[in-house]
Amino acid sequence: MYRAPVADIAFTLKNSAGFAAAQAEGIYPDLADDLLEAVLEEAGKFASDVIAPLNRVGDQQGALFKDGNVTMPPGWKDAYTQWAAAGWNGLAGPTQWGGQGLPWAINAACVEMWNSASAAFAVGPTLTMAGIDALAAHGSDDLKKIYLAKLISGEWTGTMQLTEPQAGSDVGLLRTRAERHNGAYKLTGQKIFITYGEHDLTDNIIHFVLARLPDAPSGTRGISLFLVPKFLPNADGSPGKRNDVRAHSVEHKLGIHGSPTCTMILGDNEGAVGYLIGEENAGMACMFTMMNRARLAIGVQGVGIAETATQQALAYARERKQGRTPGMKPTESAPLIAYPDVKRMLLTMRALTQAARTICYTTALALDRSERLSDPAARRAAHDRLSLLTPVAKAFSTDIANEVTSLGVQVHGGMGFIEETGAAQLFRDARIAAIYEGTNGIQAIDLVTRKLPFSDAVTAHFNELRGIVDAVSASNDPAFGWTAVRLSEAIDSLNRATQWLVAQTGTDPDAALAGASPYLRLFGITTGGCYLAQQALTAVRLGQGAPARLAVARFFAENFAVQAHALERTIVEGAPGLIGADAALA
Amino acid sequence: MYRAPVADIAFTLKNSAGFAAAQAEGIYPDLADDLLEAVLEEAGKFASDVIAPLNRVGDQQGALFKDGNVTMPPGWKDAYTQWAAAGWNGLAGPTQWGGQGLPWAINAACVEMWNSASAAFAVGPTLTMAGIDALAAHGSDDLKKIYLAKLISGEWTGTMQLTEPQAGSDVGLLRTRAERHNGAYKLTGQKIFITYGEHDLTDNIIHFVLARLPDAPSGTRGISLFLVPKFLPNADGSPGKRNDVRAHSVEHKLGIHGSPTCTMILGDNEGAVGYLIGEENAGMACMFTMMNRARLAIGVQGVGIAETATQQALAYARERKQGRTPGMKPTESAPLIAYPDVKRMLLTMRALTQAARTICYTTALALDRSERLSDPAARRAAHDRLSLLTPVAKAFSTDIANEVTSLGVQVHGGMGFIEETGAAQLFRDARIAAIYEGTNGIQAIDLVTRKLPFSDAVTAHFNELRGIVDAVSASNDPAFGWTAVRLSEAIDSLNRATQWLVAQTGTDPDAALAGASPYLRLFGITTGGCYLAQQALTAVRLGQGAPARLAVARFFAENFAVQAHALERTIVEGAPGLIGADAALA
Repeated sequence: MYRAPVADIAFTLKNSAGFAAAQAEGIYPDLADDLLEAVLEEAGKFASDVIAPLNRVGDQQGALFKDGNVTMPPGWKDAYTQWAAAGWNGLAGPTQWGGQGLPWAINAACVEMWNSASAAFAVGPTLTMAGIDALAAHGSDDLKKIYLAKLISGEWTGTMQLTEPQAGSDVGLLRTRAERHNGAYKLTGQKIFITYGEHDLTDNIIHFVLARLPDAPSGTRGISLFLVPKFLPNADGSPGKRNDVRAHSVEHKLGIHGSPTCTMILGDNEGAVGYLIGEENAGMACMFTMMNRARLAIGVQGVGIAETATQQALAYARERKQGRTPGMKPTESAPLIAYPDVKRMLLTMRALTQAARTICYTTALALDRSERLSDPAARRAAHDRLSLLTPVAKAFSTDIANEVTSLGVQVHGGMGFIEETGAAQLFRDARIAAIYEGTNGIQAIDLVTRKLPFSDAVTAHFNELRGIVDAVSASNDPAFGWTAVRLSEAIDSLNRATQWLVAQTGTDPDAALAGASPYLRLFGITTGGCYLAQQALTAVRLGQGAPARLAVARFFAENFAVQAHALERTIVEGAPGLIGADAALA
Repeated sequence: MYRAPVADIAFTLKNSAGFAAAQAEGIYPDLADDLLEAVLEEAGKFASDVIAPLNRVGDQQGALFKDGNVTMPPGWKDAYTQWAAAGWNGLAGPTQWGGQGLPWAINAACVEMWNSASAAFAVGPTLTMAGIDALAAHGSDDLKKIYLAKLISGEWTGTMQLTEPQAGSDVGLLRTRAERHNGAYKLTGQKIFITYGEHDLTDNIIHFVLARLPDAPSGTRGISLFLVPKFLPNADGSPGKRNDVRAHSVEHKLGIHGSPTCTMILGDNEGAVGYLIGEENAGMACMFTMMNRARLAIGVQGVGIAETATQQALAYARERKQGRTPGMKPTESAPLIAYPDVKRMLLTMRALTQAARTICYTTALALDRSERLSDPAARRAAHDRLSLLTPVAKAFSTDIANEVTSLGVQVHGGMGFIEETGAAQLFRDARIAAIYEGTNGIQAIDLVTRKLPFSDAVTAHFNELRGIVDAVSASNDPAFGWTAVRLSEAIDSLNRATQWLVAQTGTDPDAALAGASPYLRLFGITTGGCYLAQQALTAVRLGQGAPARLAVARFFAENFAVQAHALERTIVEGAPGLIGADAALA
């Protein structure tokens, strides 16, 4: 069963992701010194004691749909109510509306824990938080007054409604229609894949819906964002008249069965009343506010699921005995963990998870700094760093979640294929994270075509990585093995691949796009490898768990960072072969 | 829906796996020239028309257990009966007992098709065939007379019963007891994870059970193999008295729901009557006869599932339109397949599947040659080659099945996570193949510790690969891109890693074991890459689909063979870091 790795998370936040440095910069002025650990401890307890025990029933019973209503799995409503009442939903929400105003970095660590306990449970609040962002950033004061406090407290939840049957990754194709009506709007259309579109956890649900005005330009420039409540609030704020937005069905999914994924019908009768957020036809900008925050959260979801899979596999490998290692008596048998090949799987799980965690937390720190730094140029630089790291945090972490949960099944052997063991559920649950909030292919294209051109952020990032490798070299610590050499080569490969891709973007965009996914992987392993090495250096300096961190950093460098050169070659040499391969797909 | 790639399979068998050469050697003397294609055509039709339509219901309804009986999914009994009646079960079975005596190579291609249509359906007969092998090789004439013909016709099915709760990969721990009784034996014990342990497809089931005599030595040297029929046959061969072997339950699994995975109880009442196969305490040798054949079949299962996933993803990527490629009008939208990143996923699926297919078919050819060549030394060499390639065929093909089916989900985007699409089922079904019949970690250890010492087979294999690369170089065909360079480097890496591992095996076995899994991958990508290149050369020479095969070979070399050097480093440099990493797993 999941136990929150509070010490590891706190160490990573403070000494690697930059939390302590940011504190020293003064961006968290009201934060008591021991608050970080205190919050993490409490979150960890809630995650393992209250949420984790509900994960299995959520998978087995799922969210049940009947006559337009969704019944959540047994125990989920109680847990959600407790969770919101304890203030977890509003942890990083603005204090003006009842939030606690704590750092996003702390919230990210808590989101990891909710996801470790139950990804299906955690994904609902993730979208509420994204809706809060969009409303807080772009909503009118009137809308904020009515909705923000209840969304932040978790009394109401939010949904993000982008996708339609013909409009998935290409949101510009959406057809949901909004007509002006008495100072508000009436919406008509159908949305699919709407996470927590309907449920019985709360007495109202606030839908954030992308739609198109009758006179809107085509494509993404003609999209507007609307707030569409399930119940139109009364003057006193209580839920009033039922709005014309309904769940039509719930999907039968591979995983996260406890999360109701709904097809939603808007305006089947009189039209769904909606309120504009931001300007007409400026919905994409509002949506990107939601999406970026949500993308980081989904990266963190990958980390959370991977952490649970790692814990479970480790526990099984320690307990299960099979065979003998050299020197054992015939009557003895060794635990699986004693075998080098099993150790390889467990170390891979551990190292990939920690690398992804550090990338996600570092991204969360960039978010805090982009909002809280006083100097506008420094805020801008932090924002560019946030933009650069977000697609990596999302895609690398969810890719490794697939790898780690698959290894989790493998470590269990035949038991891993049996649903009762739980390893299979993690494998199934993880699989969506590389798909939703922008597929990982979309993240890679975003990284290559929109983020690399911000060369200052890229240069600063690479310099940071080089600095780490120089420090590893200077340490002369033999426990690092080949770490410095492999990381240095990886940065060289990353640097060359970056220059090559940027050069192609103008002249041969398809060649750049062909290398996008291997490039994101190269970026992820190089960054992750350097961050793990930096953690090991810090652990040595502080005398905190140095042997473990050295071992993880070394393993990552010798088994993952070592792949950098092949990825560079694939990117730089592989495009013509890929682009010219149509005959192979005929 | 699945369509058997008959032309591709025939090309691969004949021109790459060595079927045509073997025919020229005269090992298939009675085989008509056009028989290969005729058999493949018929098998393809049966697979796609009869079996494939039952795959979905098999997943949804599964095999139902009640009161010791298993009811197979609707339509499965009819399909199985038709399938057996058409002679497919006995395709490669000995003619003496009613089999058709066709090459294992042809059977492997057919097994691929059954698995493409439904892995849950195909896995049952796979184990029957393995039982046939053991009985034919080691059984007494009396046993053969009673059981072989019915097992070969498929009138009865077989099971392999090794695993017990405490004895998984370590079969030496098994406790099932066999006592001598009236010239036969009485068995008592419990077996788990027994594929097709109970079902209603046939009126008898023949269990091949590993058990231990009271006076047997401990460990694997004290294991004997028994034939334990569900019903004891009457004198006329019809099923008679019910034997004391029963299914206790059926597992709730991640995938292959149509395949009943049973816990079996032997001897709860008067003891299960069993008949010895081979000698007492020589059961492991008999079992290895079954396992080796079954391991190749499971590799082929990986290929079959990967093929279906590839076909499905290709069809979806051609049909689904999202966004625009450069130069398209705003009103148009492009199919997913037009995007380089999607093309990368599809090419990866195609290339990995074809590489694994070729490795499996080549292994099947080695099996045929090991049985059919007249010269004993040549037979022995073929047998060593079979032994060398079997773990690679099993593990590489099932590893890539996981990768390919995961990409299949990804290509579908959000739809991939919805069960109705079918991509998720392939992803779930594939996951067992890397686990059963010896986990892929066990295969890697087998390769490194038991197969590499057969240096003649290794040398011959590497020489064969070098010959292919030399031919690619000599062709000077620019369509190969970096193929020759990358494959040549890959062979160098494989060669160096092999020498290093063999050197460690005596002095530092843990160091060798630490590198086993990356070594198997290195062996697989190098071998697969060379075979694909050889196919491309042949396609150019014959003028048969050369552009497609050149593109696949090039893509594989530039995207997979290119990883060889990193794998070599991981193997040769990574052992100390892995072995010394216990602190990271504390």
